[in-house]
Amino acid sequence: MNYSRKMKTKFIDIEAGKLISIIHEKDAKELGLFLLDRVELINPETKKTIITVVDITDSMVKQNEIGLFEDVKKILGLRKPKEITVTPVSTPESVKFIKKKMDGESLNEKEIKEIVKDMTNNYLSQIEASAFVSAVYIRGFDLGETISMTKALVEGGEKLNLNKKFVVDKHSIGGINGRATMILVPIVAANNLLIPKTSSKSITSAAGTADSMEVLTNINLSMKKIKKITEKVGGVIAWGGSLQLAPGDDKIIAIEHPLNLDPPGQVIASVMAKKVSVGAKYLVIDIPVGMHTKVKTKENAETMAKKFLEVSKEMGIKTEVLLTDGTKPNGPAFGAALEAKHAMEILEGKIFDNLAQKSCQLAGTLFELTGKTKKGKGYSKAVELLKTGKALKKMKEIIKAQGGTINSSKKIKLSSKKIEILSKKSGKVERLDLTLLKDIARTAGAPVDPKAGLMLKIEEDDVIEKGQVLFEIHGENQRKLEIAKMLALKNNPVKLGGVVIEKII
Amino acid sequence: MNYSRKMKTKFIDIEAGKLISIIHEKDAKELGLFLLDRVELINPETKKTIITVVDITDSMVKQNEIGLFEDVKKILGLRKPKEITVTPVSTPESVKFIKKKMDGESLNEKEIKEIVKDMTNNYLSQIEASAFVSAVYIRGFDLGETISMTKALVEGGEKLNLNKKFVVDKHSIGGINGRATMILVPIVAANNLLIPKTSSKSITSAAGTADSMEVLTNINLSMKKIKKITEKVGGVIAWGGSLQLAPGDDKIIAIEHPLNLDPPGQVIASVMAKKVSVGAKYLVIDIPVGMHTKVKTKENAETMAKKFLEVSKEMGIKTEVLLTDGTKPNGPAFGAALEAKHAMEILEGKIFDNLAQKSCQLAGTLFELTGKTKKGKGYSKAVELLKTGKALKKMKEIIKAQGGTINSSKKIKLSSKKIEILSKKSGKVERLDLTLLKDIARTAGAPVDPKAGLMLKIEEDDVIEKGQVLFEIHGENQRKLEIAKMLALKNNPVKLGGVVIEKII
Repeated sequence: MNYSRKMKTKFIDIEAGKLISIIHEKDAKELGLFLLDRVELINPETKKTIITVVDITDSMVKQNEIGLFEDVKKILGLRKPKEITVTPVSTPESVKFIKKKMDGESLNEKEIKEIVKDMTNNYLSQIEASAFVSAVYIRGFDLGETISMTKALVEGGEKLNLNKKFVVDKHSIGGINGRATMILVPIVAANNLLIPKTSSKSITSAAGTADSMEVLTNINLSMKKIKKITEKVGGVIAWGGSLQLAPGDDKIIAIEHPLNLDPPGQVIASVMAKKVSVGAKYLVIDIPVGMHTKVKTKENAETMAKKFLEVSKEMGIKTEVLLTDGTKPNGPAFGAALEAKHAMEILEGKIFDNLAQKSCQLAGTLFELTGKTKKGKGYSKAVELLKTGKALKKMKEIIKAQGGTINSSKKIKLSSKKIEILSKKSGKVERLDLTLLKDIARTAGAPVDPKAGLMLKIEEDDVIEKGQVLFEIHGENQRKLEIAKMLALKNNPVKLGGVVIEKII
Repeated sequence: MNYSRKMKTKFIDIEAGKLISIIHEKDAKELGLFLLDRVELINPETKKTIITVVDITDSMVKQNEIGLFEDVKKILGLRKPKEITVTPVSTPESVKFIKKKMDGESLNEKEIKEIVKDMTNNYLSQIEASAFVSAVYIRGFDLGETISMTKALVEGGEKLNLNKKFVVDKHSIGGINGRATMILVPIVAANNLLIPKTSSKSITSAAGTADSMEVLTNINLSMKKIKKITEKVGGVIAWGGSLQLAPGDDKIIAIEHPLNLDPPGQVIASVMAKKVSVGAKYLVIDIPVGMHTKVKTKENAETMAKKFLEVSKEMGIKTEVLLTDGTKPNGPAFGAALEAKHAMEILEGKIFDNLAQKSCQLAGTLFELTGKTKKGKGYSKAVELLKTGKALKKMKEIIKAQGGTINSSKKIKLSSKKIEILSKKSGKVERLDLTLLKDIARTAGAPVDPKAGLMLKIEEDDVIEKGQVLFEIHGENQRKLEIAKMLALKNNPVKLGGVVIEKII
């Protein structure tokens, strides 16, 4: 039986980003509170209430004082320091479910929903959230749990209600470069499918689809706007980051990232939740396989693909998974503007390279899934839409509908500064180090500087001469360009082999 | 290749307790930093350097500014805001070892030492530390890992160097009440063994040994003082909290507590590290077994005992483990002053109850382990030292050496206020709810108010009358006493059965 205490508030003028209050160690002892235990705070005037975890200090607040950060102060509706009621409360039930998972038991839908809800509401500490993510990583998710997690993530977020039959979507798992989405979306929309595509900004790559699309048009669209544009022109390419689709997913990723964890069950739930949230009924998933991509081996990709299909079935989405070659770059461009320009040149019919082909394969798969074409005819239909300029026309409509005007490759401004990297010897291009190419682009300023990046001037298997340009490094900041150049010269990402097969004397 | 940035410091006037710096989200993106990634900060003037994790904000600091908490500011030797050098650095190697443990591999000594060192130095985030503790809980520690953890904890802390042969120690795993240590230490010291006992304050119980000892004398002793007193009078009972014995252990416990985890391997390493640090050569361990104690079943206790013996052997400590009955209270007192008084009354020969017997059994075990008595003669030797007043005389010496004057049960001041709880009916005492008794004592103000607590007036199997006093609740704060009384009346911790065996009409 814990009794309540009145305590005087002390404001701490920063945003903690977490629901924390700070109490003196003597008060903590009296209230029986340990670091990260929880208290309920009530503002007796506004009757507003909140539960926070406690941090314990012997200096920041005095005895009988409680320190409140901006976030907590706002929720309680406090303008100036006054007395509030502080009551210790027990650990939330979700912590018991986390323990259950740690102990190796499967969690049911209710339990997973409770954990996700508490994580989304910042109600679990980082210690508790990390224990959950660690347990999921170590114990794994079975199919039922993956489905429950998908549903839990959907439940906590916004939803797009198009109420149409032919809502389709595409997802790519951790490729390195190339904007297939910007080619696929207009092809698909040009064939009367609806594709309300949300995409991400770069975290570790040189550019995300949202970064490249932002070079052409506005990507910060509300759910209402996404719905309206999709209904009008058939396709959208928006930034998903501010949309509150499956916000619980962001919380989980924030834990996974510092530990460098990607539990497959969680990855699948994360992807599927977003697809369910936008109302997709047909889905094509691209898993690039290779040493530089997220999925390193064909076996892992196949296991993952199987699970995607199982969860899709349960969620009522007709899905096909394509394993693609992740050992080669998707086109020569790395960086937001360069990748946008390359995608536009494909749409304009100037280039038909492996990125164009891959985009047509993915689009064609959606045509076959939806029955828009017969089996085996999807790819050629996609190529036709691309070559006849219908996809380009659709892309222009999309750019305009989203509020932008940069609707051709020529209108895209590239960096005024660039550095060419020349080959120090002759030979045959045996291998490209994609991770290093991406790192050079980032060192040059990508993704913050949209014009920064790298443009390959050679391909694998090319036979090149000493002094030939291997790639250009672009960027607006001269110092960064120089550092990127140093990196490129120190660790050459273009691996050459000898071209001479036989030498006859 | 991450390049350095000069950034302007902004001071944030609070102690974060962790090594964190705050940067703007645009700078984070430019530096390729994600929440909880690490940066090295260098003060170009003092050349002082520190590695912190980064928190990312869009409001607390401006672009090109870095927010520093008090702790970081001090380490860098910054008086006023100025430019410092900020360089992203990679994740520490210990995080890889944590991942290895998560993946089910055993860790070697070097790896465990690295993890403990980084935790002790606040160099791992709570997410990383929690992942480690979770992995240890889920995967378990094998014997080699438990020994490595023991060594790692010892290495990071202070050590007591008595350089004597007969240094002994005692440890009890999670009992509910009763100050066996305060009885055992003087008995043992009276028989010319050295026992530099460090003990803890209460976390979840009504009192810890340190709380009760503090009623009699000073418990905040330096390592130097502990050494001096042990050499002079043979025994000490000091508070271990400020001694920096195995400080890594505190960091691990801070993670275990909110998750309510007690991985057995970690518990054993934690106990053994402290024993090694004080230089103990002989050790008796008491594992109370019962539903209210930490170890619930005899099987678990036996498994734990076996591991204690294995690790002890490796660390060169001769150890015996006693499983004791944890279903009954260790004497009638709950609370610092009440338990101190009860212990003194045992030493004064006024009482010889189950707590006295248990203390003599533990002391006697140490006599047999050290060869001070023959096998089977330890207990009677301990009883003799108690009954002849030699242990009391030694306790008075210890109290004096530690700087105190409260050296008899009569000198202990109890609370001026108390409430008696009477039985509502007649019957036989079948069971005492120890957890509830402890909770009542805590509600009355224990352990912050040393006089607060609970004194049982009956024992199990007593036949009692309606209206008879079951227990007294003590405490200086009337309001808390009333709440404790309400709790006692609502959930009676003294469970009665009918006393009538047969009724003849």
